[in-house]
Amino acid sequence: MAPLKLHGVPFSTCTARVMACLEEKNVEYEICPVDLSTGAHKRPDFISKNPFGQIPVLEDGDITLFESRAICNYIAHKYKDQGTDLLQHGNLHGFAKVMVGCEVESQQFNPAMGPIFFHTFIAPMRGWAPDQKAIDESVVKVRTVLDVYEKMLSSSKYLAGDSYTLADLNHLPYITYIMKTPHADLINSRPHVKAWWEAVSSRPASLKVTQGMTLGSK
Amino acid sequence: MAPLKLHGVPFSTCTARVMACLEEKNVEYEICPVDLSTGAHKRPDFISKNPFGQIPVLEDGDITLFESRAICNYIAHKYKDQGTDLLQHGNLHGFAKVMVGCEVESQQFNPAMGPIFFHTFIAPMRGWAPDQKAIDESVVKVRTVLDVYEKMLSSSKYLAGDSYTLADLNHLPYITYIMKTPHADLINSRPHVKAWWEAVSSRPASLKVTQGMTLGSK
Repeated sequence: MAPLKLHGVPFSTCTARVMACLEEKNVEYEICPVDLSTGAHKRPDFISKNPFGQIPVLEDGDITLFESRAICNYIAHKYKDQGTDLLQHGNLHGFAKVMVGCEVESQQFNPAMGPIFFHTFIAPMRGWAPDQKAIDESVVKVRTVLDVYEKMLSSSKYLAGDSYTLADLNHLPYITYIMKTPHADLINSRPHVKAWWEAVSSRPASLKVTQGMTLGSK
Repeated sequence: MAPLKLHGVPFSTCTARVMACLEEKNVEYEICPVDLSTGAHKRPDFISKNPFGQIPVLEDGDITLFESRAICNYIAHKYKDQGTDLLQHGNLHGFAKVMVGCEVESQQFNPAMGPIFFHTFIAPMRGWAPDQKAIDESVVKVRTVLDVYEKMLSSSKYLAGDSYTLADLNHLPYITYIMKTPHADLINSRPHVKAWWEAVSSRPASLKVTQGMTLGSK
């Protein structure tokens, strides 16, 4: 069977999220590079795959998906019987926790962390001055979120219980990059969050993906 | 069996989202009102249910969930065999579209629409001057998102195909409120989006919920 086609670039946070999911599920895939520097993601052939003109896009036969979290959810459901059980299938209590953890990442963690990532990695690349006020405001928000995580992780190894799930995986991209900056202290200063991050980032699937996350490297 | 307990208030957008889902699935539930005016959602007994101190919270026996989209996803999965099939269960292509549509709402529509809602309904309630610049910037973003919707809805009745799903339902709260403002033109000026909204908002489950969405009313 033809492998899944993932249109994106390994250094992109959202592409990396999907790659980590595919690796955890032992799903064969090929990367179809998208040349962001020439605006390939804004051209009609790409827009026909994702009308928002953003990477990644996953093609699975005649099924085309975009939005990294949607793609991960799809993969986790479709391949529920292989690789890591990222959704706690067949365990309603566990599944509920995974759903909650995924939405906490999406609605609390991601909007808080986004500006720090943007102004630390993306703005300089585009020759823009980082907005320190935006960074400072975001740091305050991230602290609030991570204080809740610290408490949650004092009673379970992972965010949705004692097994690694999509709720944890979805955090991999942003934290990987943030750990390369002085903001790493947001993670390192919270013992349970730090231990959680060490467990998440040292997984073979995580290591395979994060080695390609080269933004900010020379 | 004891009905599910939904902690929240019917005029809140996120509580309304969950109510619409419960109504579509014909699930019995009771509303446990949370007195936001006295800060009941920030007290220890509520924080023990949702550490972020936000409504809504759903209690289903010994399972406690928060984050409205997580709750909806849980309900749609748990009660997959009753009421409206909000996830296109058993149809991988359809399920993929629902996942994508839900994430588009969460990552594209919601962040774009949020500031318009906040500065039109919430800021005045708190005695704050609305931030017109923030509203104007958001209107531009919402237009971009709705232009994509207009195209998507020219080839299918709903966002994830020709059946009503969670991808549509999740939009109900914000658009219900926006339609009470001059920004209603964002919807009304796009024929396919307008027809979609008329179909979404006229559903019995939608009507039952939106009658309680009284923010901005005298």
